[in-house]
Amino acid sequence: MRFEILQHDSNCNARLGQIHTPHGMVHTPVFMPVATRGAIRALTIRDIEELGFEIVLSNTYHMYIRPGTDLLQKAGGLHHFMNYHKPLLTDSGGFQVFSLADLRKVHHDGVEFQSHIDGSKHFFTPEKVLDIQRIIGSDIMMVLDECVAYPADLQTAKTAVDRTLQWAGRSYEYWHQNFDIDAQALFAIVQGGVYPDLRLQCSTELQHYNFSGFAVGGLSVGEPKSQYSDITAVTVPALPWDKPRYMMGVGSPPEILEAIRYGVDMFDCVMPTRIARNGTLFTTNGRINIKSSIYAEDFNPLDEHCHCYVCKTFTRAYLRHIYKMNEIASLIYNTYHNLYFMKYFMDTIQKSIANNQFMDEYNKWRKIYSNSEKNNE
Amino acid sequence: MRFEILQHDSNCNARLGQIHTPHGMVHTPVFMPVATRGAIRALTIRDIEELGFEIVLSNTYHMYIRPGTDLLQKAGGLHHFMNYHKPLLTDSGGFQVFSLADLRKVHHDGVEFQSHIDGSKHFFTPEKVLDIQRIIGSDIMMVLDECVAYPADLQTAKTAVDRTLQWAGRSYEYWHQNFDIDAQALFAIVQGGVYPDLRLQCSTELQHYNFSGFAVGGLSVGEPKSQYSDITAVTVPALPWDKPRYMMGVGSPPEILEAIRYGVDMFDCVMPTRIARNGTLFTTNGRINIKSSIYAEDFNPLDEHCHCYVCKTFTRAYLRHIYKMNEIASLIYNTYHNLYFMKYFMDTIQKSIANNQFMDEYNKWRKIYSNSEKNNE
Repeated sequence: MRFEILQHDSNCNARLGQIHTPHGMVHTPVFMPVATRGAIRALTIRDIEELGFEIVLSNTYHMYIRPGTDLLQKAGGLHHFMNYHKPLLTDSGGFQVFSLADLRKVHHDGVEFQSHIDGSKHFFTPEKVLDIQRIIGSDIMMVLDECVAYPADLQTAKTAVDRTLQWAGRSYEYWHQNFDIDAQALFAIVQGGVYPDLRLQCSTELQHYNFSGFAVGGLSVGEPKSQYSDITAVTVPALPWDKPRYMMGVGSPPEILEAIRYGVDMFDCVMPTRIARNGTLFTTNGRINIKSSIYAEDFNPLDEHCHCYVCKTFTRAYLRHIYKMNEIASLIYNTYHNLYFMKYFMDTIQKSIANNQFMDEYNKWRKIYSNSEKNNE
Repeated sequence: MRFEILQHDSNCNARLGQIHTPHGMVHTPVFMPVATRGAIRALTIRDIEELGFEIVLSNTYHMYIRPGTDLLQKAGGLHHFMNYHKPLLTDSGGFQVFSLADLRKVHHDGVEFQSHIDGSKHFFTPEKVLDIQRIIGSDIMMVLDECVAYPADLQTAKTAVDRTLQWAGRSYEYWHQNFDIDAQALFAIVQGGVYPDLRLQCSTELQHYNFSGFAVGGLSVGEPKSQYSDITAVTVPALPWDKPRYMMGVGSPPEILEAIRYGVDMFDCVMPTRIARNGTLFTTNGRINIKSSIYAEDFNPLDEHCHCYVCKTFTRAYLRHIYKMNEIASLIYNTYHNLYFMKYFMDTIQKSIANNQFMDEYNKWRKIYSNSEKNNE
């Protein structure tokens, strides 16, 4: 993997870049749709190609549980299994173990847990999650980290940072000894909760190793917006300028804007697709919920400024009707539109950085999305 | 509407035809996918176009209940509402009233029922269902008939036939007086349960009127296969040769073959899409169920002889994985494949009739599908 910064906005830390991977190039800042179990919810893989996404994220924890590494190995990795041949990033499974799995127990060596599906016992170590990601064949792998829930007291957050740093060191050594590091990149993850000193410490110490990139974990987990902003402002500029920065699990327009302002390059989130299935749709005028009765006889497109297939083809009245009727087509159309919006949103951001106008874009979208944000998720 | 018979197979009653409607031409024998509520389950309208279907069916009962005729009128009809601009056939709502609605009561004048959604009271008459279909704007409308459940005793079946004939007469008069009969065709429906004499009587008496086409209703409702075959053999040849014949609610390959042999031209059924969502898939070697563990490590296409997007793109192992994981993409891919199969199946039948070889095709597919039919619906 190679990262190239093409330009940075002279009025803030926003930057325009390219990540070169064995499966192709990714323009940054980028939003990555999530194929949790090897499929994007409610879309086909050709929809994802048509929408123009250059990278997709999949979840190591889920793929490890089902279909499992034996099958993935026989399939020749996840690219072949999904028949998707562009760049692929996988998380380490850490977040899922800490948020989804049952009866987890953190040891010095790794984390013990039970599958949320069948209760079977498993043990993840920093080395093991890399072995799984090798079999998956991801272009960008993530290290195992310890995630704490929000709120966490200082001591809990500190213990997690210590463990995260130890595991990052082991991950780095294992990666260097056992991987083709050009074929499969490895990103470290900064933890530290909402404590600026811990975040700074974690960011600094991770730089003892020459990771391919650096991610910020454990944000957008329920903390107030001001804390999200403050921690981002402290953490991101402390990371190496010449490496990609990835804000994990973040996907709302205001959060993305805030992070890009401080120099983040990559994002992923299931939110745009999840809220789509609930009828909440992004537009160039903010969020709307298609189930509202105000759209019952509205024969306008969902978003008159949007050029997606759904907006060019159907009316709000029709989209509301099929939503109310629980048609699967409603899930498809809503998801397609929201991902088209996310791609469009990132494209406008890229253009604004190229023109040194990111802060205009920031202000425009923040204004549009601060009004509609609270309504209906 | 204009119907043209291009050719008929010299060894049986199978015929090749074209139905010309204001929204385009339909090659027969044809299978019509069902857009019950104005959307095909789990597919987009562009999928339907890509699959090459020339006509779609929608349900008058469902569209009348939701979104209702007021909205459909404001939308300019169902073609505009769905943004689908090819031929459209609607049933009369009779079958749904008799199978789905609550507390129905048949009068001389029509049928009273309660909506299965909100319990509201409604009254369908032969004239009213035509008015609804006028608003829908269907190219081919169906008359209101009285459907009886299987089994029905002779007297019940006879009463239903009498009512069906009375209503057909009223429908014909109302259509002629109030419709542009070239723009919206009207088909009559033969009832009579499993009683050959009743079927013959109904077929004969309906021909007092110059309907655009004739349908056979009340078959494939649970009767033994031999009775389906016997009643088809008696009823269909008694209908006018120069008008299209439509076997309502029938869609399994063996039933379609049996009906085409006796001269049926049109079919509709939700079965191919419904079983797809349950993992049951049509192939050129019969039905398979993708959830079976025998496909867990099967990296072959679903059907190696199929040229559809799904078969060209994914393995059985992948399709099984996403089915087991309840991915929405599984519903999409399975539905897409089964409808592609139905289109392919009808295309091969059309070709065989053109070559006077329908009975070869009949024997080939009956053999393939008699083995796999029982297993897994």
